[in-house]
Amino acid sequence: MASIELRRRIRWADADAAGRLHFPRIFEYFEEGEGELLRSVGFSMFDRGGYDFPRKHVDAVFHRALPLDAPFVMRVTVGKLGNTSIRYDYQVFADEGCSQLALEGSMTVVVVKEGKPAPIPDKLRELLS
Amino acid sequence: MASIELRRRIRWADADAAGRLHFPRIFEYFEEGEGELLRSVGFSMFDRGGYDFPRKHVDAVFHRALPLDAPFVMRVTVGKLGNTSIRYDYQVFADEGCSQLALEGSMTVVVVKEGKPAPIPDKLRELLS
Amino acid sequence: MASIELRRRIRWADADAAGRLHFPRIFEYFEEGEGELLRSVGFSMFDRGGYDFPRKHVDAVFHRALPLDAPFVMRVTVGKLGNTSIRYDYQVFADEGCSQLALEGSMTVVVVKEGKPAPIPDKLRELLS
Amino acid sequence: MASIELRRRIRWADADAAGRLHFPRIFEYFEEGEGELLRSVGFSMFDRGGYDFPRKHVDAVFHRALPLDAPFVMRVTVGKLGNTSIRYDYQVFADEGCSQLALEGSMTVVVVKEGKPAPIPDKLRELLS
Repeated sequence: MASIELRRRIRWADADAAGRLHFPRIFEYFEEGEGELLRSVGFSMFDRGGYDFPRKHVDAVFHRALPLDAPFVMRVTVGKLGNTSIRYDYQVFADEGCSQLALEGSMTVVVVKEGKPAPIPDKLRELLS
Repeated sequence: MASIELRRRIRWADADAAGRLHFPRIFEYFEEGEGELLRSVGFSMFDRGGYDFPRKHVDAVFHRALPLDAPFVMRVTVGKLGNTSIRYDYQVFADEGCSQLALEGSMTVVVVKEGKPAPIPDKLRELLS
Repeated sequence: MASIELRRRIRWADADAAGRLHFPRIFEYFEEGEGELLRSVGFSMFDRGGYDFPRKHVDAVFHRALPLDAPFVMRVTVGKLGNTSIRYDYQVFADEGCSQLALEGSMTVVVVKEGKPAPIPDKLRELLS
Repeated sequence: MASIELRRRIRWADADAAGRLHFPRIFEYFEEGEGELLRSVGFSMFDRGGYDFPRKHVDAVFHRALPLDAPFVMRVTVGKLGNTSIRYDYQVFADEGCSQLALEGSMTVVVVKEGKPAPIPDKLRELLS
């Protein structure tokens, strides 16, 4: 399955009053990861041929805190290609060597065309496999 | 178990380029609900007697889109009082009568004191039961 | 000129790692104030008859910090009705009596129709005067 | 004066319901630019020797819309070193060649130590000059 890694940092805007990752922000990175994964295989989130990808389910489990300014590596992998849905899996590591798992999670989107769930386009399915 | 309802609206800042709830924002409302639920039973999130409540797990399932400017009702309920953790359950309705479920989810926090998981304080347990 | 007041609180999501208002967030409240002011005079930001209101200029001056959980009062006033622009003025107070000014600022929007600046519609001009 | 450039993209999380930069987000990039400029001269925003940098004033003027997914170049320059304040100036360009100015703005911070305005530390002044 297609996979990429992004390297980012906990910016001031990403931290909360406890001085660590404000967790809703990690889902913004999840979405950035989705966009960059799709871009990496030649598909644009922003010229989608009439397709829409509403989110159906998201979750995350937090293993260690990411403090303000901490660099992190986010690995995005296609976890499951359903008939009309795509699940992306995420692992966020606190170190460059990807040995310290800070959090993991997933985001499942539905493929929608003209307002209704539709099969993943063949070309996209191929690109993500 | 303790429970409250909040009435809010999908503000401009809460909407995404598809003109509907940008899902990471709902977790900000989840946290607001946690704070208001605690406030309603007389406990302040912001004067916590040395306790910290890092998030351990969050999830959400989306049933119907909430468009820009849509009013919504968020019901927050204490879902589970563990030994050292609290799970809050959330239901977000698209209508005042709470018959149209837009999304539901949960947030589990760990009770931490001096850097280590600690039992829920007796008074807080009582207030949330 | 039209004016309203909103009462809000510095939510967890609005605070930064210094435990006070993360300033970009106040502009989200500015926009909420714009929307509620327009709503109060019977105009919907979300059914705008083909009009668009891109932002041209924003500014803010900070006089005192708003800590996490602090309630505040935001006063929104129409500051200037130009030919094709509207300036909203904002004052945010740290107290219910509006004697402690925490910050003030403004937001100027351009009235755009079919991609070009257009005169403020007569009815809207009247409602905001 | 010290200056750097950052290259970023209007992410899904940065766009509003009009499909373009949600302006409060640009201030998050302003802050990221401040942090990276300081880092580039060897000063850490996150190990600040007891100094605090509350924001005193911010502004921005918008010249052209940045649509979703648009890459941009943000130039950050130290605009003024006062006695107890620093003004950062920002220019955001829609093109790699920095000929299409999308917006410009500034952020003025006060140097605070032990709760009071304090002179810019000599070393920091030197680094930023």
